[in-house]
Amino acid sequence: MTVTAAQGFEASGIAIGLKDSGGKDLALVVNRGPRYASAAVFTSNRAQANPILWSKQVVDDGTVNAIVLNSGGANCFTGPEGFQTTHATAEAVASALEVSAGDVLVCSTGLIGVQLDRDKLLPGVATAAAALSTDGGADAAEAILTTDSHAKTAVVEGDGWVIGGMAKGAGMLAPGLATMLVVLTTDADLASDQLDRALRAATRVSFDRLDSDGCMSTNDQVTLLASGASGVSPDADSFTAAVREICLDLARQLQGDAEGASHDITIEVLGAVSEDDAVEVGRSVARNNLFKAAVFGNDPNWGRVLAAIGTTQAVFDPYAVDVSMNGVRVCHAGAPDAPREDVDLTGRAVSVVIDLKEGTESATILTNDLTHDYVHENSAYSS
Amino acid sequence: MTVTAAQGFEASGIAIGLKDSGGKDLALVVNRGPRYASAAVFTSNRAQANPILWSKQVVDDGTVNAIVLNSGGANCFTGPEGFQTTHATAEAVASALEVSAGDVLVCSTGLIGVQLDRDKLLPGVATAAAALSTDGGADAAEAILTTDSHAKTAVVEGDGWVIGGMAKGAGMLAPGLATMLVVLTTDADLASDQLDRALRAATRVSFDRLDSDGCMSTNDQVTLLASGASGVSPDADSFTAAVREICLDLARQLQGDAEGASHDITIEVLGAVSEDDAVEVGRSVARNNLFKAAVFGNDPNWGRVLAAIGTTQAVFDPYAVDVSMNGVRVCHAGAPDAPREDVDLTGRAVSVVIDLKEGTESATILTNDLTHDYVHENSAYSS
Repeated sequence: MTVTAAQGFEASGIAIGLKDSGGKDLALVVNRGPRYASAAVFTSNRAQANPILWSKQVVDDGTVNAIVLNSGGANCFTGPEGFQTTHATAEAVASALEVSAGDVLVCSTGLIGVQLDRDKLLPGVATAAAALSTDGGADAAEAILTTDSHAKTAVVEGDGWVIGGMAKGAGMLAPGLATMLVVLTTDADLASDQLDRALRAATRVSFDRLDSDGCMSTNDQVTLLASGASGVSPDADSFTAAVREICLDLARQLQGDAEGASHDITIEVLGAVSEDDAVEVGRSVARNNLFKAAVFGNDPNWGRVLAAIGTTQAVFDPYAVDVSMNGVRVCHAGAPDAPREDVDLTGRAVSVVIDLKEGTESATILTNDLTHDYVHENSAYSS
Repeated sequence: MTVTAAQGFEASGIAIGLKDSGGKDLALVVNRGPRYASAAVFTSNRAQANPILWSKQVVDDGTVNAIVLNSGGANCFTGPEGFQTTHATAEAVASALEVSAGDVLVCSTGLIGVQLDRDKLLPGVATAAAALSTDGGADAAEAILTTDSHAKTAVVEGDGWVIGGMAKGAGMLAPGLATMLVVLTTDADLASDQLDRALRAATRVSFDRLDSDGCMSTNDQVTLLASGASGVSPDADSFTAAVREICLDLARQLQGDAEGASHDITIEVLGAVSEDDAVEVGRSVARNNLFKAAVFGNDPNWGRVLAAIGTTQAVFDPYAVDVSMNGVRVCHAGAPDAPREDVDLTGRAVSVVIDLKEGTESATILTNDLTHDYVHENSAYSS
């Protein structure tokens, strides 16, 4: 059901020939009201794609009628011609739905530096609009995929209201607020500033903590649309908790389908002086290629964990730190503890717990291992 | 000739059983004077190995009689027992050479988190001292290798004086002042503060600009020893230039032998507002796994270059930047320029030139591609 689980939304997903595979590559999600509230977070990469530049302006007033998303091309670093393509796409949606182009978000994903084919895209929008339905969520979730092996969707139910969502992303997964394309829809009756607070609180501890390969995309966007169709206005805490739950669910799905990965690694940093310190330490380990390759080889090489921590500015004493892997404490106070042989890393899930012994703050970072398949998928063809 | 090219130095390299392979694993380099001047730079990783903690104290007064180096174990995160091993090693050298242990540098390289075998190491030092000779440089250069495929040595001749050097390093090559074990010897007649200035100036633009895999070691050290045996005191400029030349030569040799690499990538950043900006931009590209994997696949994926630049704090406009690869300008003003097909990346050497169009400063970063062999070498066994 994904983005059509909540009342007030219609969606479609169709193939218009942007992808070489011939698969679905254009998705449209429309809010039928009565409210048209929205919030979005965008990549913090300073090199931003044309649809990001466009969508930032659109979401600014908190009113959004529709979001159109294409795979098969990122429309990034495509110059003025590329921006005109984004603008024309929004105009085509506006024309088909009889709304303002200034209330239509646009997202693109695929190869950077290649123009989108406007002759396919603009007629495609009309076809997608004609295909809109209240059970089109699954088609939409399929149409936004690139190197993903399967669609990522989730639904969380509140008390009389629902949040549904879809996500794509398998490479370039690294934080920058949003780190992939995500569309969340809800029939809760909330204003855009309420959506914005809930979305920022949720992404800060979910998508922002997913760092699969350290590479930040130019096109990422997480959007939350509210129709108000349930007539229920949940309180801020319960709504934020639900948004966080669906974001964490989708983040875990993205981690589990990361390009070429054979392990899903959860890095939990404890005993930090601040949450920022905990995040910096977790991220430094998540981005250490030697550590990631060791996990691929089922090798509990904790020395690489400590070498990574040493590159941070976090408060810590290298000779106080404990490190456990899959429940076995292999390093105590910066020296060898249990034998490496006691650690079994053959399963897909790997837990690394780092206790800095300096304070009470903590954070969890999600990442993947560095594998032959990652190198293959990112070298054998452009993406 | 390496470290014995300069007058006043003797060296040896022997096998004492620290390496599983049975190869040479203990090197000793001795300064026979008449001067005993020295300078060193150390890893900036905050997790530092026991020999680093020791050597920083030793070099502090500028007087060094000898440096002993072992492969087969990093002696890092080995607790008080590990520090005592480093201390005992320096004492053994001091005893054999009749000098003070406080004037003996110690370096170790190999796996982190494993104790060195003192019963092999301490008798080994006596054997290495007995084997010292004025043509022992080649043996010493061999004894410090770990995953390196061959020894790295260089000699630069001044006007009446010489600098010789040896280096090891094939993984964990990333900046932190020093990024590997390097020993340079000279018979120039200079004081330790003169050596220090020349060494810091040279490493800043050589080893500090080598970033093979973004992983900073815990054990890196670059040491310069001067015997004064030539009786010649070169001026600061010509000596610094010679140190820079030998450092760049050895840095290129390390790049060319980096674990699993199939391309040596030179990233030249032009048009920056500051040298720091240029270095930050070059390093962000050098650490981008997607870009590195693309080069492995001979794919001129310049979108990944721009996506990496976008993660920096450098002054730049994404829609002003030019990018050339192997002489072909594939991106002009942030938009596609010459076709990707015009770029031939099949050779080992790859040149990436990034013009930020903001100023007149520049910097060059050396890196490697991300390959199946890199993943294999760092996952199939501990190192």
